[in-house]
This record gives sequence, structure tokens and C-alpha cells, in this order.
Amino acid sequence: MGKRGDPMARSNVLELISRHQPGHPLDQGFYQSEDIFETDVDFLAQRWMLVDHESRIPESGDYFLSETGADSYIVIRGRDGAIRAFHNVCRHRGSRVCLAPQGHSKLLVCPYHAWSYRLDGSLKSAREMGPHFDPGDYGLREIGVRLLGGLVFISPEGDGAAFDQEFAGFGDVLAFHGMSQAKVAARRTYPTAANWKLVVENFLECYHCLPAHPEYSSVHSRAKLEAFGAGTGSGDPAAVARFQPRLEEWEQRTRELGHPLPFYEGDHTTQHMAQLARFPISSDDRVSETQDGELGCSRMMGSFAESDGGQTAIAFCPTGYVLANCDFAFMVIFRPLGPLSTEVDALWLVDGDAVEGEEYDVGRLMWVWDATLKQDKKITENNQRGVLSRGYQPGPYALSEVRVNTFIQWYLHGLSELLARDPCLVP
Amino acid sequence: MGKRGDPMARSNVLELISRHQPGHPLDQGFYQSEDIFETDVDFLAQRWMLVDHESRIPESGDYFLSETGADSYIVIRGRDGAIRAFHNVCRHRGSRVCLAPQGHSKLLVCPYHAWSYRLDGSLKSAREMGPHFDPGDYGLREIGVRLLGGLVFISPEGDGAAFDQEFAGFGDVLAFHGMSQAKVAARRTYPTAANWKLVVENFLECYHCLPAHPEYSSVHSRAKLEAFGAGTGSGDPAAVARFQPRLEEWEQRTRELGHPLPFYEGDHTTQHMAQLARFPISSDDRVSETQDGELGCSRMMGSFAESDGGQTAIAFCPTGYVLANCDFAFMVIFRPLGPLSTEVDALWLVDGDAVEGEEYDVGRLMWVWDATLKQDKKITENNQRGVLSRGYQPGPYALSEVRVNTFIQWYLHGLSELLARDPCLVP
Amino acid sequence: MGKRGDPMARSNVLELISRHQPGHPLDQGFYQSEDIFETDVDFLAQRWMLVDHESRIPESGDYFLSETGADSYIVIRGRDGAIRAFHNVCRHRGSRVCLAPQGHSKLLVCPYHAWSYRLDGSLKSAREMGPHFDPGDYGLREIGVRLLGGLVFISPEGDGAAFDQEFAGFGDVLAFHGMSQAKVAARRTYPTAANWKLVVENFLECYHCLPAHPEYSSVHSRAKLEAFGAGTGSGDPAAVARFQPRLEEWEQRTRELGHPLPFYEGDHTTQHMAQLARFPISSDDRVSETQDGELGCSRMMGSFAESDGGQTAIAFCPTGYVLANCDFAFMVIFRPLGPLSTEVDALWLVDGDAVEGEEYDVGRLMWVWDATLKQDKKITENNQRGVLSRGYQPGPYALSEVRVNTFIQWYLHGLSELLARDPCLVP
Repeated sequence: MGKRGDPMARSNVLELISRHQPGHPLDQGFYQSEDIFETDVDFLAQRWMLVDHESRIPESGDYFLSETGADSYIVIRGRDGAIRAFHNVCRHRGSRVCLAPQGHSKLLVCPYHAWSYRLDGSLKSAREMGPHFDPGDYGLREIGVRLLGGLVFISPEGDGAAFDQEFAGFGDVLAFHGMSQAKVAARRTYPTAANWKLVVENFLECYHCLPAHPEYSSVHSRAKLEAFGAGTGSGDPAAVARFQPRLEEWEQRTRELGHPLPFYEGDHTTQHMAQLARFPISSDDRVSETQDGELGCSRMMGSFAESDGGQTAIAFCPTGYVLANCDFAFMVIFRPLGPLSTEVDALWLVDGDAVEGEEYDVGRLMWVWDATLKQDKKITENNQRGVLSRGYQPGPYALSEVRVNTFIQWYLHGLSELLARDPCLVP
Repeated sequence: MGKRGDPMARSNVLELISRHQPGHPLDQGFYQSEDIFETDVDFLAQRWMLVDHESRIPESGDYFLSETGADSYIVIRGRDGAIRAFHNVCRHRGSRVCLAPQGHSKLLVCPYHAWSYRLDGSLKSAREMGPHFDPGDYGLREIGVRLLGGLVFISPEGDGAAFDQEFAGFGDVLAFHGMSQAKVAARRTYPTAANWKLVVENFLECYHCLPAHPEYSSVHSRAKLEAFGAGTGSGDPAAVARFQPRLEEWEQRTRELGHPLPFYEGDHTTQHMAQLARFPISSDDRVSETQDGELGCSRMMGSFAESDGGQTAIAFCPTGYVLANCDFAFMVIFRPLGPLSTEVDALWLVDGDAVEGEEYDVGRLMWVWDATLKQDKKITENNQRGVLSRGYQPGPYALSEVRVNTFIQWYLHGLSELLARDPCLVP
Repeated sequence: MGKRGDPMARSNVLELISRHQPGHPLDQGFYQSEDIFETDVDFLAQRWMLVDHESRIPESGDYFLSETGADSYIVIRGRDGAIRAFHNVCRHRGSRVCLAPQGHSKLLVCPYHAWSYRLDGSLKSAREMGPHFDPGDYGLREIGVRLLGGLVFISPEGDGAAFDQEFAGFGDVLAFHGMSQAKVAARRTYPTAANWKLVVENFLECYHCLPAHPEYSSVHSRAKLEAFGAGTGSGDPAAVARFQPRLEEWEQRTRELGHPLPFYEGDHTTQHMAQLARFPISSDDRVSETQDGELGCSRMMGSFAESDGGQTAIAFCPTGYVLANCDFAFMVIFRPLGPLSTEVDALWLVDGDAVEGEEYDVGRLMWVWDATLKQDKKITENNQRGVLSRGYQPGPYALSEVRVNTFIQWYLHGLSELLARDPCLVP
């Protein structure tokens, strides 16, 4: 009836999980079923989702909305300066409280019956509720918020301690990149008619880069892509060996400059399958991820005095990533909206003091990833169309799709855990 | 398979009913499920639905279509002057017989194979049907029609005697308002992306009027809305006491003029939860429901010689209402089209002899309700969006939402009865 | 979960089949259910579907796509000149391989990761797949192809021998019509918001022609339509008797000219319910199916030296038909895209050497069927709307709807067979 908690749907999911063939993509059902999509939303609700940069809400009362599936969350800065998040649902009869995607307000007033909530979510006033009504029982339903290097994460049901532990090592690198002092130079949305898992799978491998992304390949160079296109372990040994001299030269210079060389890779049993690493952008001496290899912003970010030609790649969760150069950073977030609909939100960040037009040009910053995300939208939608066909049969992953395979294991592992905990499972 | 009669769906509905918390809105499932929507259509089919004013079809052969869910009905005036209604489905292979929303025809000819039906629904001709075919078996399927004060009601499965009994007391008031001699001055449709029950709930309370309807509130006055915004019993005692002098003054004048002061309020166990009452429009001396408080039509309706400043409010069924002033009447009908789609049809009526441009101006008549229904569309759609969220949790009704609470009880009561009668329920 | 193979859905279908009343259209569920639509796609996959004329892909490497439901097939001419067909799904991760509706390529390269396939479907290259990967295991999944008189048929799961046997007698007639030497003069698509079975039912009877198709009726004449509107056995005896002199005169002249007079009619137990017959176009002396009765193309097709005023009507399967005159042929294909969506593709063919503008005019060729298919779209959509209503009740077929009745029997017979073979049926 309600879409959530239908016991039959869940037992069918378990059967599909048991049929999965390791080293292969998922069965058709995972990429189209309404029931599985609802379970996926439950699954993601227990994890922490990167949603934006905190510079979007600098002042007390500033807020923005973050949406997943049919769910809307208010992320708002309180009078105490802290950021909190709430279900965007009035506790009276369920109206959305905030309607605009972002705004500023001293009080959150529901547009329906004017129940008003303070910035900390507590109910301030509700008319005509009678003597037995205790406003303390009817604050907005709060969800978890975590900040890390200026990045905002929310989680409806996640464990904050697990977040703090899993991302403990990420703060220093984000600080070196000055992410807390960044501002958003540009943002763009790429609505994609595909299941969110296909969008993630596409982002976790660079096997498709040479055929599908000419701009990206020209910037990152064939030699680099073949060796480390999707990170450590994604290239075949011969390509890695060919790239070794360039890598060593880059690592030596990076150490000399005192720049970080972090490395972390969560496996499929971790909560977020996080990743953190630095690589040279290319086999050549380009200093940033721009068309011509020159800086995209003349004001460096954080502690960078000069470029080492490297890029820090961070996966916070399969739905949120940051790729940080010395001068600007790119951030991408995948928002599952429905079984066949995902919103891809991209942000480009520069130092908070950088002056547009003088120190950076938005078109130059966006060049490679805007082109790449437009291409990703098309290839992922073609993938979805094929996956919906009677002719679809999951094939073997290539060597460089190792991280996609980890994602599939991570997803099935987490889904099994979720379903095992759910009492509805008992037939 | 077919959407109707799936036994599992119905048992799930029963479980949802048993979980309902009194004094609160319904669970999420009731506002989104396809299965429940189909059951709702069954539920409404056993009641009488206000569909239009009979002046729409003055001549024999005039017809209009009325649509609910996937169902279309032909309402037509016969050669004998009587109004009848039929399923708009050919008895041969099921084509729609009438395609235009209204029209005139001496014979209803199916556009597919030209089976033709008389105005009383009987089959007149069907070619090539062989010797064993009896046209008497293949008339259009007739449904119930009732007329009350010029208003047309239809019911696919309702009990006509129950209608006559329940609305016995309504005829005199409608006659005093001259509703039978009225004509439609204007009509407008407000397609609303929300479940029909949210549309009804919104109409049954005025708790939202002050925050959401500035035009309506300016006409009806804060003092009146706080005391009687949603009828008798909807205001808190202090507000009622404050309004008491105005109410008594108005009642005295109304009695002196010989105008009616009817009162009826069906509870949740009645078939239609009907209501009938008269109230002063406002705390001030306005004579009609217009922006400036002056008449909207200089020709009075029915037996009114002068205005008493009152308005007659009638709920025939939660999906059909009339609000009648001395000079014009407003009528609104909610047509459930799908789980998340409701058509709101509004009509403005004046005396049948009133001359547009001379005696009334359509813009003046429509002013308050056109603005109000546009606002209702928005707030109801925001309500629906919130109700679809994971964060939705039904909250307590305010004191002035008493009639919404009655509606919820009425709905669950009627739904339980429907499901109890249905043999599919036995597992 | 996955839409295919849900055992409950299938048992419900069996129950619906058992409830069917002979001589009447199907129950509502058959015309709207997602589950039944998926079963229908399985059902059609075991039959041979007419998809196009082979002149569309004259050269090695030429291809076009054919789509049914969510499935896409590549039909391509190989280096050896043979036409083959494949699921348009990459064996790696399921992307569509070909994106354009038609094209030319020496190699089919998946746009995602550049797996490349030869024209015979075998995998030519796939990068980075490791030492244990055998390209021989990963060719495109091939489906059946048959050619008959230049017409291309495909079948995902059909039996080629059954095709050859069932259509053995059709080749001579197609050859006489020169269908192999034809070219496509025009094609047009009529997207229809109706279940494919309603589209088929509409095409299998001419009971609706007089009321709904004035152009078609003017060309074919009332006398012919009443006697043989939907082929042998579709007219009532009196009308057949009235037409008998014209029929005998036409048959005599046809024999004198040495033109074919074929007749075949598969019953509901055959695989394809095929039909083959020749009839005079009209009761008058028109020579082709044009507005004025004159030739549509001055170059005759195949072995015709002059017209006998006849038309060869062929049903290859309920979803594919050819109506061939002496000078041009009309071909129509119904592609089920969803429970309420069918694509109707029409092609007009002339001799491959005919010169447009000199020997034929496309507007003249298309006149009768373009008008007729536009009308069919409307009446079928009205039929669908009525069938979705609560008021729908299948009525009796007219005498001239005999072939529609055969189709219903054929469909239910085949569906029962399909479900009986399926192990999922055991509860």
C-alpha cells in the first residue's frame, strides 16, 4: 500500500541479491523497480550524503533545500551559527514548510496554517491547538548534519560517530586545499534519465573515458588514464609501469613542496566506500584541470603557493565527490529522484576572496567537466535503455572497472544488512 | 490484474484503517496509492455527486460529460424532458460514445461502428448483429440521477431513496435562493496535483484562511472567520462570544425579512456528511461576497427582495458545495482523476434573467473565489508533496479543523463498510 | 521485482483467460495491465514480426533498428550480403550499441566503452578484459531473421522452420507483385495511445469503415465493403450475393490475364493466423487504390502488364500486413511500446526503378491510407478510453467481425500455451 515496508517486495529483493553473479553488473530489476528504489532510499538514508558547500548559507537564517526521491530536507544555519537539517514537512498536516530552493528567514512559517518554527526546529507558535497541546512535541523532525572542510553532509538515519571515524583522515587534506574558505563560482544541474546506480557506476570507472570523453582525455592524457584513470589499481600493470617515471617525478616534487600525498580506500564493507588520493593531472606539466593546462584561477586555494600539477580526488560516498586542484575544485553530487531519474549537481569552487573576471573565468573552470557531464548524461541514459531491454545480460567487468565491482559488492552488502534488520522480512 | 477487486490490496487497506490515529490526518498510503484510489472511486460511486446545474442542458438532446477517475458519464435531457445519465461506453466494443465535453444530439451514435442509442439510452440500431441479437439487451448502462433545486446529481451505484431522505430539508432553501431559475454566469477549472481527500480537507477548514487567503479574509472579516470560519463549532469559544452581538443582530434582521435560517449537519455515519447553514458574510454590513461588499448582480435571486448580508453554505457531499448569496451563488465540485490528480470545477450562478454587462460583471462575481481557488491549488499541492515524504507524520488537528476530522471518520467508516461487504476480502 | 516472470501475475492472467466469454472482446485487464503487456511481449517474441522492406539496407553495413516494448533490435546486412538481427544491447554493461534509427557502419562500436562487434555480431575487440576473457563468448545476442519477397521478418525466439512452412505459399504471390524489386516511396508513423490488441482488432474488421472512413469507403465502394470488407466470410450472405456478378466478372478477367488468385486463411490454432487473398478493389472499374481510381504509379510492379482492378491482401501476423495493388503496395506494422502505447508504421512501396515526380506522386499513393490511419488512431484511442472505464462490459461481435473473434481466440490460445510452458506457473 504505502510504498515502504511491503514484505513481499523485500523478499523478492533478497532473492535477486542471492542470484547476483560476482564481477558483473546487477540484474535488470535493480535498475528499474519502484520497490527497489524505495529500498535504496532507505539504504542511502543510513549513510551520509554530501549536499553542498557551507558558503551557500553564511548567515543565521540562510537555508537551502536538499531533495532525494520524494523527500525534501531543509538545511539551515541557526542563531548560534550551527547548521542543522530538518525534514521539510510541517508537523501539523504535512505541508512542505519551505518552498523556494533557497532563502533566508528568521522563522520558518508553514505556508498552509502558519505553524512557525524557530531556526533550531522547535515549534514557536500554532494557533487554536487547545489546552492539551504541547509545542515541545511538535518541532520539525531533525536529521543529522556533519561539516567537514566546509562541506555539508546530511543523514536522515546515519550514525554521526561512524562518520567522524570514517572521515577522520580527510580533514587535513581538505584544510590544505582551503575548502572551508572556498566559495561556489558556478553550479549546474544535469538531469539524467537513469537509475542512480548506473550514474555511480559510470563515475567509478574511466574505461569509457577514451571513447566517450575527448575533452577529459585531452586534459588527463592517455598515459595517465590508462595507468590511473579510475585511481590506484584501475590500470593494467604495463600501463602503470609506463607511467611510473612520471609518477615518481611528480611525487618527489610534491614532497619537496610539502604538499600532501594522502591515500585511503574503503572497501565494500565500509559504511561509505570512501576514497582519498592525489595523482598528477596528466603525463605532461599542466598545472590545473583546464583546457590549456594553465591555472583556472590566479588566486591559489588554501596552503598552495604553487601548483605541483596534482589533483586530489575524494569520494565521500558513491553519491558525492570532490576533485581539488591547487586553484579550483570540482564537486559533484548524485541525487536519486526516482527509479529512472537522477539529478546530477555540479559545483565549481574557488577561494572565497577570488574575484570573478579578474582572477578567474567561469567558462574556463567549467570547460572539462561541463563537457564530460553532458557526455555522461547521454551514455548513462543509453546504458539505462539497454538495461531495460529483454536482451540485457550483465557482462564481465574490465580490469579497470575494479571500483565499479567494489560498488556493486558494497551496495549488495549494505542492502542485505538493511533487509536482515527489517522485521518485515519474516514472511 | 484489472485494477478493481484485487483481494490483497483490500486487506492492506483494512490494516491501514486499523492503524489510524483519531484526531489526525490519514497515513501516507491513503494519499498516494493506486489501489486505494481505485477503492475510493468505488466508495464515491455509492454516493451522489453534484455534477452541474441543469441549465447546462435546457433542451431535449442536450448533454454534457462528467468524469471521475477513468470513468466518463453522459448526462442528457430526454425527449420527455427528464435528465438521465449513462456510462459513456458503447455496449459493443467499449468505445466512448460521446467525445465532446458537451453537445446536442437527437441520437447518440457511437463514432466507431455507429451503434446508435436513443436519448433514453435504449439501443436504436446496430448493423449486422445477426438474428439472435436482442437490442433490448444492449442499451447504454444507466446510472442514477437526482435533481434538487436545479442542481444535478449522479450516482453509479447510489440509493435514490437515501438521497431523497437525506436532502429532504434542502429543497426549500434552494427554492428560496431561486436555484432552479439560475443560469451559469462563469465557470473555471483548477487542475490540482493532489489526492482528492487533501482537496476536500482543505475545503473543510478555514484555519488556513488568514495565512493563505488575503482576499477571502478581507471579505469575510477576521472576527467572522475566527468565530465561524468553517461553520458552527469551528471557532473557539472566545471568538464565538466576541462575534455573538453581530450574529444576533443579523439573525434578528434575517427573521424580520422572512429569510431562512436553516441548520443541518450530518455526522460521519451519514451517507453524505451533508451540511446546511446560513451565516452573516462578515462582521461588517456588506451585502454580498464581493470585493467592495456591494451586490455582485443587481438582479436578486429567488425570493430575495433585499439582502440580509447573509450567505447560505451547503455541503452536499465532501466533493460538492454551494455557497449562495442573495444575488449570486458559487458552486464547486472536486473530481478525483487519479491518486495525485483532482479537477476542481467552479461555477458562478446568477438569476436566469440577469443580463451580463448590465446587471452583473463576471470579474466582480469571480473575484474572491477565483483568487481563493488559485491559492488552494498551491497550498494543497504543497501539502501533497510533503505528505509523500519520508518525513511525513500525521499531526493533531486544530480545534477549528473539527469538520476535517469528521471527514476522516466519515471516509474510514464508509471505506470499512465497503470492504466488509466485498466478498474479495475473505483471504 | 523484475517485470518478467512474476508467478502471481501469471496465475492472474490464467484466471482472466478462464473467465473470457467467447464471441466477445477481452476483459478490461488485458487492455491495460503492465503484467499482461510484459507477457504479450513474450508471446510476440515467439512469433515472426514483419519489420521492414529489405531495400532499406541494400549495402553491407547498412542497418536499422526495430523496437517493441522496451526492446531494441539491430537489423543489419553483413559482409556476405545476408541480413542478420541482434539485440541492441552491449554484452559488457548493457548499453545500447546503435543509437540512430538507421545508419551504416563497418563495425558496430558501443558508444560507452568501445567494445566493437563485426557485422555478424561477433565481438572483435574489447580492451583490458584480462587473460581469461574469451571474445567468442561475447558476441551480440542474435535473433532470427527471415526474408520473404523482400520483406524482413525478425523473431527473438521464434522457430524458423515453422515460418518457412506457414508462409511457403506466399512467396509466389509476392514474386508476382515484384516485392523483392520494390523500394519504399514513403513512410509515416502514427503513434497511438492504445493497447496493441485494440489496434489489431480495429484492423481486422471493416464494420467501422462506412461510419469512420469516408475516403476508404469511397475507394472500395459500399457494395464491396458489405460483401468482403474484412475478407472472405466477413459479409452477410445477401451482400455477398449482390456482389457475386462483379466478383465473377473480376475473377474471370484475372484468370484470363494470368494473374494470381491465391487464398489462405490460418485459423486461431496456427502460429501466425496468416491470411492471403485477392479481391477486386471496388465494385467499379478502378485500377488502383487511389482517389480517382487511376494508377498511382505509371510503372507497374512485378509481372503486372496491366491492372485487373484487384488487390492482394496479406496478413503475415496480426501485427504486420501488406496490401498490394498492381502499381504500388501499402504495408503496415503495429509495434507494441507499452500497455497503452502502440506505434503504427506505414510504408508505401513502388517498383525500385520508378521515378518520383515522373512516374508517381507520393501524395496520390498515400491518400487513402494516410487518411484512414489518422482516423484509426482516433477511433482506437476512443475505444481504449472507454475500455478503461468502470462502465466497460465486452459486447457481442457483429457478423463481419469474425476475424476479430478469431484473433481473440488465437491470442488466448497462444497465451495459454505460453503460460502452460512456463515453470513459474507452479505456485
